[in-house]
Amino acid sequence: MNINVHFGRTVKQLRSAQGLSQEAFAARADLNRTYLGEVERGVATPSLATVAKIAAALNMSPSALIAQSEELTAIAG
Amino acid sequence: MNINVHFGRTVKQLRSAQGLSQEAFAARADLNRTYLGEVERGVATPSLATVAKIAAALNMSPSALIAQSEELTAIAG
Repeated sequence: MNINVHFGRTVKQLRSAQGLSQEAFAARADLNRTYLGEVERGVATPSLATVAKIAAALNMSPSALIAQSEELTAIAG
Repeated sequence: MNINVHFGRTVKQLRSAQGLSQEAFAARADLNRTYLGEVERGVATPSLATVAKIAAALNMSPSALIAQSEELTAIAG
């Protein structure tokens, strides 16, 4: 499974854990809501700049966010 | 300075430290050499998938590679 799918699932998990709707989170991350949905479903190819925006909106560093999605990759095997 | 510029400088530093030419490294990372040059100069907007290819070619995880470029950001202030 590719990095985009695991990244998207991680973003969705973290967003939901903060009790934020896609709409509220997209506004916080200065992203289009539809695009955020595509990122969460793993059908978009987020750029490093988008990763940085999402990480900032989650109050974490881009590397920490990606490390978390790598854990998902490790679990998924 | 944005994440793409620091990411590019980090890739260049790590590539050079391994004594690899852009051409050799681009082949290893399955990337177009011209595009790799743009990434290193910070004028390209690498996707997460490209970050993963570059990290793999450097034998490190994407999060470790991005963490290293974040250090550059911290130093640059």
